[in-house]
Parts: sequence; structure tokens; C-alpha cells
Amino acid sequence: MLHTLFNPKSVAIIGASAKELSIGNVITKNLLKYNFKGPIYPINPKAPEVRGVKAYPSITDVPGDIDLAHISIPAKFSPQAVDECGKKGVKFIIINSAGYKEVGPEGEAIEKEVVRIAHSYGMRIFGPNCQGIINSDPDVRAYCDFTFTYPDPGHISIVAQSGGVGAVIMQNIHDLGVGMRHYASNGNAADISIPEIIKYYGEDEKTKVIILYVEGFADPHEFMEAAKEVAAKKPILAMRAGRTEEGAKAATSHTGGLAGAGISTELIFYKTGILTFRDEAEMCQSAVAFANQPVPSGNRVGMITDTGGPAIIATDELIDGGLKIPPLTDKAKEYLADRLYPEATISNPIDVLATANARHYRSALDALLNEDQIDSIYINFVTPPFVDCEAVAKEMAEVSKMRQKTLVCNYMTDKPQWTGTTAIMKDGNVPCYDFPEMAAKALIAMTRYNELRSREIGSVITFDDVDKSKAKGVINSAIKQKREILLADEVYEILACYGIPVAEWEIAGSPEEAASAAMTIGYPVVLKADSEQIIHKSDVGGVKVNLKDSGEVLAAAIEMDEKFGKSGLRYFVQKFMPGGKEIIIGANKEPGLGHLIMFGLGGIFVELLKDVAFDITPITEFEANHMIESIKTYPLIEGFRGEKGADKAKLTEILQRVSQLVTDLPEIGEMDLNPIMAFENEVFVVDARIKI
Amino acid sequence: MLHTLFNPKSVAIIGASAKELSIGNVITKNLLKYNFKGPIYPINPKAPEVRGVKAYPSITDVPGDIDLAHISIPAKFSPQAVDECGKKGVKFIIINSAGYKEVGPEGEAIEKEVVRIAHSYGMRIFGPNCQGIINSDPDVRAYCDFTFTYPDPGHISIVAQSGGVGAVIMQNIHDLGVGMRHYASNGNAADISIPEIIKYYGEDEKTKVIILYVEGFADPHEFMEAAKEVAAKKPILAMRAGRTEEGAKAATSHTGGLAGAGISTELIFYKTGILTFRDEAEMCQSAVAFANQPVPSGNRVGMITDTGGPAIIATDELIDGGLKIPPLTDKAKEYLADRLYPEATISNPIDVLATANARHYRSALDALLNEDQIDSIYINFVTPPFVDCEAVAKEMAEVSKMRQKTLVCNYMTDKPQWTGTTAIMKDGNVPCYDFPEMAAKALIAMTRYNELRSREIGSVITFDDVDKSKAKGVINSAIKQKREILLADEVYEILACYGIPVAEWEIAGSPEEAASAAMTIGYPVVLKADSEQIIHKSDVGGVKVNLKDSGEVLAAAIEMDEKFGKSGLRYFVQKFMPGGKEIIIGANKEPGLGHLIMFGLGGIFVELLKDVAFDITPITEFEANHMIESIKTYPLIEGFRGEKGADKAKLTEILQRVSQLVTDLPEIGEMDLNPIMAFENEVFVVDARIKI
Repeated sequence: MLHTLFNPKSVAIIGASAKELSIGNVITKNLLKYNFKGPIYPINPKAPEVRGVKAYPSITDVPGDIDLAHISIPAKFSPQAVDECGKKGVKFIIINSAGYKEVGPEGEAIEKEVVRIAHSYGMRIFGPNCQGIINSDPDVRAYCDFTFTYPDPGHISIVAQSGGVGAVIMQNIHDLGVGMRHYASNGNAADISIPEIIKYYGEDEKTKVIILYVEGFADPHEFMEAAKEVAAKKPILAMRAGRTEEGAKAATSHTGGLAGAGISTELIFYKTGILTFRDEAEMCQSAVAFANQPVPSGNRVGMITDTGGPAIIATDELIDGGLKIPPLTDKAKEYLADRLYPEATISNPIDVLATANARHYRSALDALLNEDQIDSIYINFVTPPFVDCEAVAKEMAEVSKMRQKTLVCNYMTDKPQWTGTTAIMKDGNVPCYDFPEMAAKALIAMTRYNELRSREIGSVITFDDVDKSKAKGVINSAIKQKREILLADEVYEILACYGIPVAEWEIAGSPEEAASAAMTIGYPVVLKADSEQIIHKSDVGGVKVNLKDSGEVLAAAIEMDEKFGKSGLRYFVQKFMPGGKEIIIGANKEPGLGHLIMFGLGGIFVELLKDVAFDITPITEFEANHMIESIKTYPLIEGFRGEKGADKAKLTEILQRVSQLVTDLPEIGEMDLNPIMAFENEVFVVDARIKI
Repeated sequence: MLHTLFNPKSVAIIGASAKELSIGNVITKNLLKYNFKGPIYPINPKAPEVRGVKAYPSITDVPGDIDLAHISIPAKFSPQAVDECGKKGVKFIIINSAGYKEVGPEGEAIEKEVVRIAHSYGMRIFGPNCQGIINSDPDVRAYCDFTFTYPDPGHISIVAQSGGVGAVIMQNIHDLGVGMRHYASNGNAADISIPEIIKYYGEDEKTKVIILYVEGFADPHEFMEAAKEVAAKKPILAMRAGRTEEGAKAATSHTGGLAGAGISTELIFYKTGILTFRDEAEMCQSAVAFANQPVPSGNRVGMITDTGGPAIIATDELIDGGLKIPPLTDKAKEYLADRLYPEATISNPIDVLATANARHYRSALDALLNEDQIDSIYINFVTPPFVDCEAVAKEMAEVSKMRQKTLVCNYMTDKPQWTGTTAIMKDGNVPCYDFPEMAAKALIAMTRYNELRSREIGSVITFDDVDKSKAKGVINSAIKQKREILLADEVYEILACYGIPVAEWEIAGSPEEAASAAMTIGYPVVLKADSEQIIHKSDVGGVKVNLKDSGEVLAAAIEMDEKFGKSGLRYFVQKFMPGGKEIIIGANKEPGLGHLIMFGLGGIFVELLKDVAFDITPITEFEANHMIESIKTYPLIEGFRGEKGADKAKLTEILQRVSQLVTDLPEIGEMDLNPIMAFENEVFVVDARIKI
């Protein structure tokens, strides 16, 4: 679909001014400087030429066909320009100018109008308020963009919602001495979307890695579908900004950006198999490793070093990143003892010493290649002036090209001096980094990716013992009565419809009925004032726990009656079950997605320590288990130091049932099961709230 | 003391081989290439010259005086070489060769011998197994080192225990386009120590920032004294490796490195006012800001940006780093409304737009300089090809030179193209970074430093109501009896000597005595079997809680008697006090320092969540308070959501009293007060252990 956008045979620039410091002029310059393979048509009503290229007064005056047209004239003139493009038979338009949706309703109207006009001619709009696209393919060389980095051809493709961030990433990839394949920054994204671009990159054979930067999603569902499909084919490395409240606010106010989607963006990445980063430098450096090395099949690293300190730093970093540095086998030790300096340290890390020569390095590399318990190789290589470093680099390059195990190198050198060595490393596809931390982080990212892609997600189970239509009826009747918060009996009925176990309960209309209900349930009981009007029940005396006989129930109910009685109070009587683990499960509707589902231990764990896990519904059994296991206090559920734990299988099932419930009943805005009392062999919901 | 080492008037190289790939040859080359201002004397028994410099068969053959001699011959020949140096009147010796302490006892003996010989002549040894020193001073240009980076003069001085890490740091500072003052990597540090080098840097006027890398301390006390003195004069930025168990192990096995000192290294840094880093790149980039900008006087940032995305990323980073981005005053808003583009965003961040010119930038800078609620300025500057970027840079440089507020810039450009702009930024001392995250981290580091240096530590209080000699007597009698673990009554007696409140207790010799003791104390009580032989008392039935009358006490005591009775069992009877917050205070002796003192909430908070704070004794009231406030669960001590809190003043006092106790009684190896029951207005130690 987007092939012609990235591979235009000809480009026109509407608004190509002769003024050097103008966007149209810069784009003309970029196309020339990048050696674009097709004709360039500056459109300018007055100037006869721009940057030495013949200009035309109007696009309709251009003699040849035009695949792609830039528009860099003020927004108010753009509808007419788009119309003319349509008449000329242009296929894609990149609108670089600002003054659209990002400036308010007036600009938004123009934005809608230009898309409407374009579609009426079968054209697609890229932007507005955007940079554009770059294709480094030697046969195309399309620099349809006003940025300033001129990348070599390569295998990394970039798509960035923010042009500024895109430019930083492109520049850094370039500074790292690595090529780029495609670049796209589509600003307001009025028509062509980021998911479409990702899909195009997915189909592009020469794109081996995709770097993605977003600030939010226009359509999270569309994004997830596209990203899931592409992520199954090649690595997508992504970052999103706005993770802090202040950052999200800045994102909202930013040109074309949507409100920061909070925690769910990273969940969307995780769920679709996209590798998330929180640092651009780390993402770029990792992309270099992905573009040049195979993904490791496990988390066990073998290390080779010619200097002590950086090996310690790398060890710290790798271990913190969840990697393992297993000991060498006796076989490997014997092999190395025969081949390294006697003073060398034969363990993992292998310290070959600063004076090590090419043979020493090769022996260490071979030893690690032959170790079954090693998945990847980390090298510290400081280039000693008293060593033949080119010979060392040749061995690394040779091993790298075998693609047997993932290789990264902390390459400590002065590049302007060690040009020969540096070139050998580059030709050998050895990813080189300036710091042990960076090399380690790139390897960690690749290992994380292996774990992300090889995890067994399973599929969503549908429980068939549920009564969806009855639950829907409860919701509908509340909607009819214009109630937002469901009454206790409604909530518990819905839970019962979905097989979610609840502590035994009854509703009573009077203190006497409450006492008799308590008798049926069995003591001790909890008594709650059941009324939509009473919000923080326990704060105002609307909850009494551990009532042990009918006298206590009666007294408590009468007291509530006196307090809240005017509004036809009902009493919620429930079995009192102390001593279990307090659990919280919540679900919040996410626009354009399912629900954000939450799991955590109750009380201070959730309130003070924020020790909770999230996912997006619908969830599989694997995902429900992963949520439970990923909280810090999970050992308490397992049973910590001899204490009794909680029934994890039941909790997993409840999470899946809640997932099905909110998926079936999308009218539910918020649902809280808080607390759930979890015992060793049983689990009961003790209090619940549903808001529609 | 070290002046001549860093400013030698002449240098000899013992072991200057004619072979290009040899250390002595490389040092000769480096001295020549760096344009050393004094005579160079290669010492080589055979070659008439090395690298074109006349060589001498022996150091005693050299006609002139020699300030500094390198030794790069095998270790076994070094004692004789050192002796000859002594005879020649050499002042400092750098031993570059390996083969000393790091290879085992034999090497260690040679190491001790060379130091002994050197001292007998009044010479000092730098190394062995080290790189050496560099002084970039234009009048000296001493490159007495075999590394390969040739730094320009500057204001950052580096001292690194590991040569590899030192080289990485020096190279990166150089790559950042910034100069360096001194460099030192002293390897095994047999004689000249890191504290001595730090002291020398402290006295060197042209050193404005010190970068320090360590793996452990030979003498923590010496280090703290030196570092505290120097840190009061200029910023010391430091990093230590070996923070993970695996990293610490690697550090131990590393050449000359000491066992990773665990948590206490970072505490030592904190206590002496050294700024700690966990990432070399971040440390180097921060050093550039320290070398060029004033330290901010607060944590409030004003931001200027010409692109949206990087401002969001920077916001996330700054907020995560504890900085604030306060709103602009109406005055500033009005000022900017008159001066920026109408589409510009006038808030904090100020988005001047990509098309902003120099006047726009200057207005934004001036507005922020005049805002009292802004301490520092963060700028995102992507160099648009359609803007006069040099004019923009000139305004930044001018504001930077005023040194009114700290300035950092995320400078997004292709440096080989924007050379003019880059030069203006550099001349203006504007610290420039490739990523928003990096610029933000440098600013965070400077702000952290301001907080570190301006905190009020106070001084250590000595409580005079303590009975030190009595406590010492208890310890001494246990030592005499060769007991390592004190008995309960001994422990409580020591606590009483130091005014540490303990739940009322008595020791009883029989079940009957226990019952009568319980009566005196008042019910309920706890009964514990008091014997050195019973370690995990509660696991084996040696503790019974909540005994409510004499019958229960008697029964429990008889049961214990039957279980443990053979060995003359005594009974520890104590008031049972449930319902408070469980607190733990511990102290562990740290060799060469005081004790590592720990504070935390008991139970799962310490065991599962590791939510504890540490400091090194002796501690001040401020430090005791800081410990308590720095745990994550501190709100529970304050009183969380209406729950009762704990008596913080009493806890602060107990921490200080424990500090004084272990300082007075250094024989104590481990001390645990666990648990302490803390109530709203009182605090009692309920169980305690002392190991000597």
C-alpha cells in the first residue's frame, strides 16, 4: 500500500522557496544532496529555479508524472493545493506545514478537508505537521524530509510520532557508524497511520529491525493488530514518552500527541511482543546488536576480558539485567590452560590479560562457542598499544560471521587512531560499544527479546458455566434507572453469574430480618448499610464486622437505621471470614482496548507500596499466572517462611473469569473486588463494587 | 607531596625496548607524542636509541637528574632497578610491570621488598601493575602512561583503581570534546594510595572536578578523612564496581582489587559528600556539566524546547530524578506572549517552535533567568536547517557565560555539518548532550550534588547518662569465658547501661521462680528458654508468648525444662507487648570503619521486601532521622491512613544510642535488636542479640 510513498519515482515540492532557510528549499536540497534517483519538481509561482532545479508555477504545469508531492505552504492554502495534486494524478502527499489539528478547531477543520479531498482522488496524506520519509535504498535515495542526517543504507527502519525524537534516533544510529533503511515521522497522522507504516516495514525484506517511538495511540486496537503481525516476523524496539504525570501532560499539549496512555502503553508493547525501552540511547545501541547478531537462545553469558575493572562493571550490569554468568566446564578450563598466558584467569569472565594476542582471543572465543551452557559472548577489548589489535579484531570478526552465538563487544579505543581495527570489527558485524554498561545493556535487550518472544502465552479460555444474559439484564436495568453504581445484591448476582466465589450473604429489609439472615448464614457476620448514597461506608459507621450473635446484629442494624434510615435503608449481611490473605482485583475500561486488569495484595501493599500487576483483557491462564507471580509480595501467596499461603490456582481462575466478565459486559467502567479473602484452599470475594 | 610525580622535570624508562609493541617503547612514544617538556631517558642495556631518543645502558649512566623513573622490566629484576634508582637520586618510581601481589605470595614479597628499598632512599612507588599518570598542563605535558588517549588541557582530573576503567573514562571525556587535567591509575597501590592522589587533586587549583573509580578500600578510614577534606572544596564524582555478589567476586579476583565492600562503599561516598554514580557514561557526562556550569541552588527547572517529543522525554527523566518543573509566573507569560510566535507554547516547558530564531531563544532564556522559582535551565535545541543556528547558539553562550543559573543543552545535530554552531556552544561553556535523557541526567546529578552538599548533617551527640565501664565489664567477662554470644541478661544489662528501653524482664532459675517473676512483671508475659546452646528458640519451642496467668507460665516452663532441662536451663520472663509496630535495628562491624547500622520494619518488610536503611557509625541525629525516613514503609511509622504510628523521636534516640554503644564497645561484631515494639508514645526492645 505504501510502496510508492517510500519509493517515489518523482517528487514535487509545493512551496519550494528560493530562500535558503525555508522548509521547501531544504527538502529540495536534501533530495539533491542525497542523490534522489528521480526527477525533482520545485513548485513556485515566481522563481524560475530553486537550488538550480527548474521550478514550475503550478503542479499542473509539470510535464511528467508525479508520485509524491510535498506541501510546505500555509495551511489555509493547502485544500486548493491538494485538489490540484489530485487533478495532476499525484499518489501521495506529505504535508510538512503546521497550522492544523494542533492549533485548534479551525486547523482541525482544514485537516479533515484536505484528507477528504485527497481521498476523493484516491490519494493518501502523510502528516500534516510532519517531517516526512527517507528511503536509503541505493536505487531510490528518497530524502523527502527536512532533517539533516544523511544515513548510509542499512537494516534499521525508524518510525517516530515525534520528529524531534526521530531525528535524535536517526542521528545516533548514524553516529554509531551503522546504516538505516527507512525513516518516517508522520506528525498529526491525519490519514496514514503508524500501524500502516509498521506493516509496510514488516513487509520490507531489507528491514531487519524496527525502531518505534510513540506518545500515544489514535486507535490502540489497530496498533495491536498490526504490531502483533509484524513483531512475529522481526524485532520491534519501542519507546514511549509520558510515563510520569508531568510527561503525560507535556505529551497531551504536544503537537498532534494524544494523552499519555499511562501504564497501558507498555502493556500493549509487552502483549504484542514489542521490546520496550525507557532510554533512547539504549534503544539505538540495542538496535545495532539486533541488526548484526543472532538473538541468543538463553540468558547465559560467557565473558572475555583484557582488563579487570570493565569486567566487574559488566558483571554488575548483566546480573542486574537478569543474566547468568555460569562457570566454565573442566573441559574448557583445560583447553584454555594450554593456550592462554599462565597468569590469565581461567574462569568466567576469562581474563586473557592486556598483553593477550590474537591466538589467545581465538582460544577464548572457541572455548565459549563449544560450551553448551553459554548462549552469548560478551567481550571487553581495550586496544593496548603493545598488541597487534587488527589481528585480534580479525578473530572476533571471523567468529561473529559464523553467527553461532550472539557477540557484543565493549570496544575501548580511540577510533581516530585505531581505524584499521575499527573497520575490521565493523566488517565483521561485531556490535561495538564505548562502555561496558552499554555492551551489557545491548546483550540484555537481546536476551529479554528472546524471553519475550519465546514465552508461551496460550489462548484465552472461555468458561461455559457463566450466565451472560442474566448478568447483562442486571446491567441493563441499572442503565435504565440511570444508576452508575450497582447495588450490592446486583454486584454479587453478576459475580455469581460468572462463577466468582463470594462469601455467603443476604439482603435484609429491617434490623430483625438482618438478625434472622445472620442466623441462617452462621456467626460471625459483617453488617453493611446498603445504599448508593453512602460512599465511604466504613468511615461513617456503615460497616460493622465480627458480630457474634443476634443481639449484636440487631444493635448494629438499629444504630445504622438511626444514622442513615431516612432513605429506605437495606442491610447487607455477610459471613465474616478473617485470617486469609487480603487480595485486590480491579478492572478499568481503557478506551479503544479492553479493560486494564489489576492484581495485588490488599492494604498497605497496594496503598503504600503500589505492589500491583496489570494486564489488558482478555487474558490467558499464562498471563493471569504471570500477573500473580510478578508482584514483589508473591512469596506471601506462595507461603512465606512457613506461613500459610493462598490458593493460587483459584486466584488465577478468578482473574480469568473477571477478564471474561468485563469482556462480555463492556458497559462496566470500573470493577473492584476488594478485598478478596484468600485461604490455603479457598478464596472468597468479601466486598465488591461495579461502576457502569 | 606528590607534586614532583605529576610535574617531573625529567623521566627515565627502565625497560624501554626498541620493540614497538612493548610497554617501555609505548611510554617513550607517548612522552614524545604528548610533547613532554623535559628530557626523556630510555634505559636499555643494548639499544643505542629508542624511538630516536638516545638510550643509556643503566640509569646510573644518565648524565642529568631524574625526577621520575618507569620500570617495565619483569618483577624479579625490579628490586635491583629500584636500588639503582635510589642511588641515582630518583624521586618517584612508576612500576608498570605486573607479577606482584596479584599473582600470589611470591609476587607480594617482591612488592614489599621494592617499597622497602624505595623508602630507604626516600623514594615513593606508584603501582606496581599500573598504568601511571598524565598531566596535561601545557608547561609539563607528562604522559607517563602506556594508554592511548591524548587529552587536551582541561579541569577534570581522573583517579581510577582499574586502568581499564580509567582509560574508558579518559577516552569518553575526550570524545565529549572536553579537556582533562590529571590522570592517575595506581594498580596495586603498594605505596602511593588513592587518598593521597585525591588530596593532591584537592590542592591543585586547575582541577575543578574529580572523577574517582574504586573497587574497594585498602584503608576506609584514611579514604574518608582525605575525601571529606577534598569534597568540601570541589565536587568528587565516584563510581565503584562490585555492587552485585557476582561483581564483588570478580572484583576480589581482579588484579590488586579488594573484596567488594558491599553496601558500605556507597555509604562512605554519601557520608563524605561524594556524588555516587552507577554508570560511567552518566558520570562522564555529568562531569562535563560540573566543569562548565555553576551548581544549581535548588531543584526547580525551566525548560526551553524547539521540538515536542524530546521535551516529554526530558520531563519524564527530570521528574523521575526528583526535579520539579514549576509553572511560569504571569509576568513571564506576558513577557513571552509579546516576544514568541503566536503558536508557541507559553508554559513550562516553553515550546519556542522549530522555526524559532535567536531573539525567541533569548527571550525565553531571559524570562527564565528572571523567574525566582527557577534554579536551572534545560534546553532542547535541534538545529533546523531553516534557522540561523549560530545566532541561536550565540545567545545561549552569552547567557551561559553570565553563570546566573545552571544551563544544560540537549543539542540535537550532525556535528560534522554544524561545526560553527558547535564551536560557539563549546566556547560558551554550554554542556551539550546527544539525548534528552543525558542532558537531564547531568542536570539531575548537579541538583543531587547541591542537595548532598547543603544537607545539615549536624554532629554526633554523646549521651552522658551511659555506663560505659559497666558495659565493658560485661563484654570482658564474656571474652574471658570465651563466649561469643552473650546471654540474655548480659545483653539487657548492656542495653540498660546505654539507656535503651527494654520491655520489663527477669531471669528465673526454676519454673516456680519464673511464675513468681511473671507476677511481679504483670501479665501477660513471654517466657523464653535462656541458653547459649539453643539458637533458633522459637523454632524448637523455646519461646511461649501471651501467657496470661501463673498456671500458664508454670506449665510452659515445665515443658521447656523437660525439653532442654539437662544443661541447667534458666528462664527469661518478659512483659508481653503486642500491637506495636515491629522494628529492627542492627549493627555489624565493618573492618577499618565503625559499624554498619541498619534500620527497618520487622517481619516481611525486612525479610521479603528488604526495605531497610543503612549508615555507618557514629551517626548524628540528622542521619538517624534520615535512616528512618528513607525506608519505603516510613508512612507506617508516621501513621498511615488513620492507623497509629510509632514514636519517631524515641526511635531516633535509640539509633543514636546504639551508635554510641557499638562505638564505645568495638568488640561487638553483631548486634540485633529484633524486634523492637514501637507504640505511639513509647518504644521497647523485646528481643536482642549481641555477638562479640
